[in-house]
Amino acid sequence: SPQTGAVQDILYHFNLGTKTHNLPAMFGDIKFVCVGGSANRMRAFAQFMHQELGQPGHVDDIRDICEETDRYSMFKVGPVLSVSHGMGAPSISIMLHELIKLLYHSRCRDVILFRIGTSGGIGLAPGTVVITDKAVDSFFRPQFEQVVLGKVIVRSTELDEGLSKELLQCSTELPDIPTVIANTMCTHDFYEGQGRLDGALCSFSTEEKLEYLRKAHEAGVRNIEMESTVFAAMCRMCNLKAAVICVTLLNRFEGDQISTHHDVLVEYQQRPQGLVAHFIKKRLGLMA
Amino acid sequence: SPQTGAVQDILYHFNLGTKTHNLPAMFGDIKFVCVGGSANRMRAFAQFMHQELGQPGHVDDIRDICEETDRYSMFKVGPVLSVSHGMGAPSISIMLHELIKLLYHSRCRDVILFRIGTSGGIGLAPGTVVITDKAVDSFFRPQFEQVVLGKVIVRSTELDEGLSKELLQCSTELPDIPTVIANTMCTHDFYEGQGRLDGALCSFSTEEKLEYLRKAHEAGVRNIEMESTVFAAMCRMCNLKAAVICVTLLNRFEGDQISTHHDVLVEYQQRPQGLVAHFIKKRLGLMA
Repeated sequence: SPQTGAVQDILYHFNLGTKTHNLPAMFGDIKFVCVGGSANRMRAFAQFMHQELGQPGHVDDIRDICEETDRYSMFKVGPVLSVSHGMGAPSISIMLHELIKLLYHSRCRDVILFRIGTSGGIGLAPGTVVITDKAVDSFFRPQFEQVVLGKVIVRSTELDEGLSKELLQCSTELPDIPTVIANTMCTHDFYEGQGRLDGALCSFSTEEKLEYLRKAHEAGVRNIEMESTVFAAMCRMCNLKAAVICVTLLNRFEGDQISTHHDVLVEYQQRPQGLVAHFIKKRLGLMA
Repeated sequence: SPQTGAVQDILYHFNLGTKTHNLPAMFGDIKFVCVGGSANRMRAFAQFMHQELGQPGHVDDIRDICEETDRYSMFKVGPVLSVSHGMGAPSISIMLHELIKLLYHSRCRDVILFRIGTSGGIGLAPGTVVITDKAVDSFFRPQFEQVVLGKVIVRSTELDEGLSKELLQCSTELPDIPTVIANTMCTHDFYEGQGRLDGALCSFSTEEKLEYLRKAHEAGVRNIEMESTVFAAMCRMCNLKAAVICVTLLNRFEGDQISTHHDVLVEYQQRPQGLVAHFIKKRLGLMA
């Protein structure tokens, strides 16, 4: 458990602290936290939630709580916190350590965490939303390896099954959000680690790439991203209910480059946001 | 080698491409690339180089070449490119793949890469600059493990010794930049991975933490950060001369929290910038 009491706890990468900020007053009412890689997208999600929840004031007035630092961005809309985490497991793990301490210091209870993001699909039409069943590593194992003091510790990446099913139910209540529950592979590299042929380095053939993707598909993997295993492992260790909802931007059986038109990609990226917004509104009893 | 010819190569996370941009015209004269975690700091470095190189125009007019995306920021000042890479090995590796392809498509030759960053020190006074001798992993090995198609490939993280020595010589020509050449440990986590006691999760004692830091010190490690091994490995694989120059913000034997005053931290962060600027000016024959 984090430091408390007389000693200040500085959440360095948020530029927040227990002596410099009244965290319970700022964050005590948080019930839902959505995290995603891009700061712009998490700002857009906050603005979207502002409209969806019928919050007072203008969307342009939602300020970045971490504006003094460029490591992460954070926006609060009623009981919803929207936070960016950058790309890759190390980047999201720093944010999660400080977010979990923030929720602890703020005395929040029964918070649900969502990672909403983008991913490469395996055998799915681009634009399909994948709710993660198991977050697996590059070897298709549902685990995250954390090095602690030079020793490798293996942690389970199991997510909340009830939450995933509730999200899938939400997708059936919305138009035009094709959604599946499937395994998500988390890699530590976008190019070689995901079997792309178009990186600066590439030592394998198209056939070897496709064989790896086919094996992933056989292991139930339908999308690839770069944060799900550590997100699942940390939330589980801290007894926080969590779900991962990522849209696929391309079908990796068809290619490696993301060449889809910008406007289409923007619409795809709104799909996980729409799904989570619907879930939150239902939970808050705001559905007609 | 990257895709060339008729097929467009999209550098997705830079929002640049070989058909949409004339990369040789935009970047062909690049001789030095400086990368660092924070977008704000890399903008500040570009503005500083603008002054140091006596470039025409106003510093406020230096625009972010990647302003259409929030994944990375990129600034060009004469022969110097300044690029942000976020935090952690996966984040910098995506940037490096696309940067190396950018340099290739732009037909740049004899480019030197510098990572300038912040770090935790081991047994050094805060504010000391460490030029990396060997970039080592959490087990003090000078290597980076890259997973390719589900297989672990081990890559050497050897850096250019002559370049490190030339940078150390530069430090002696500047006032008030205490500098050493030493090993740098690269971890994939800021809290548990670096033996911090103040994360959301912590399963070890103060004594176990200090024992790990003492072992690192015995292995010649004087600072800890999160990008050096993959930076060194990728530059080496691509025959690019590279150096890592990080300032220490605290002495980890003394504590875990970064509680130093903001103004002091800002001055510390300018030290690697000053060192690299001096090196570049010497190489360009701009020293009086």
